[in-house]
Amino acid sequence: MDEVMEKCIFCQVVCGEIEVVRVYEDELVVCFMDIEPINEGHMLIVPKRHVLDGDELTDDEARAIMDVSRRLIRVLKERYKPYGYSMMQNGGAFNDIGHYHMHVFPRYEGDGFGWTYGEIEEPRAAEIVGREMRKLLNG
Amino acid sequence: MDEVMEKCIFCQVVCGEIEVVRVYEDELVVCFMDIEPINEGHMLIVPKRHVLDGDELTDDEARAIMDVSRRLIRVLKERYKPYGYSMMQNGGAFNDIGHYHMHVFPRYEGDGFGWTYGEIEEPRAAEIVGREMRKLLNG
Repeated sequence: MDEVMEKCIFCQVVCGEIEVVRVYEDELVVCFMDIEPINEGHMLIVPKRHVLDGDELTDDEARAIMDVSRRLIRVLKERYKPYGYSMMQNGGAFNDIGHYHMHVFPRYEGDGFGWTYGEIEEPRAAEIVGREMRKLLNG
Repeated sequence: MDEVMEKCIFCQVVCGEIEVVRVYEDELVVCFMDIEPINEGHMLIVPKRHVLDGDELTDDEARAIMDVSRRLIRVLKERYKPYGYSMMQNGGAFNDIGHYHMHVFPRYEGDGFGWTYGEIEEPRAAEIVGREMRKLLNG
């Protein structure tokens, strides 16, 4: 195990050094219960390989994460009959663990979960930003 | 166009009846700029087919969404050098449009974006919940 993995909590989860309640595992990903659930049934899906952001995932890892999340959504609906669900993933400095993890959890009316918005710098005209992004994405 | 599609804003976006700033399109998905960006570069990825939740996506649609999001993360990093990014998708009653859409946007320190948490009902013991979920997920 290299130095990064030694320090990474989720690498320790993956290799079993830290115990969690696992609900699914295959060659590429592990799915386990968040220890600070937003609602009961809150799960995390992590690639076994130590990566930080979505753009570092291989095609197979990305596909596995999406496949498990879709099965999870189905199961959460079946079990909890929630009003809905949320799925989210924070990258870069906003990942407080430093190892990619996708949150999936059931949602209810009045569960108090929500987003706050700050004052943002006025974005440039959508057409200008869009032209740039289009070029970068397709180019 | 059937009745649902006629009423759905994002179906109208897909077929070009409502104009948006598109940045990417293929047979399965469209990616365009959110008209109320959390930060400049905030994009939505939607399947062309009218579905509400992640568990209704086909394998190919799910894969296309994940592929575009990964390319988008790469491009947002390249263009904005943000502190990080967030990716989120709300299902069921928490999707205010009624058509699946994945948010991807760059994040900055102090951008004021954040989550609020309510008081939740005390979840049952993780082991008990986990046992149920494991059974449901693994069949």
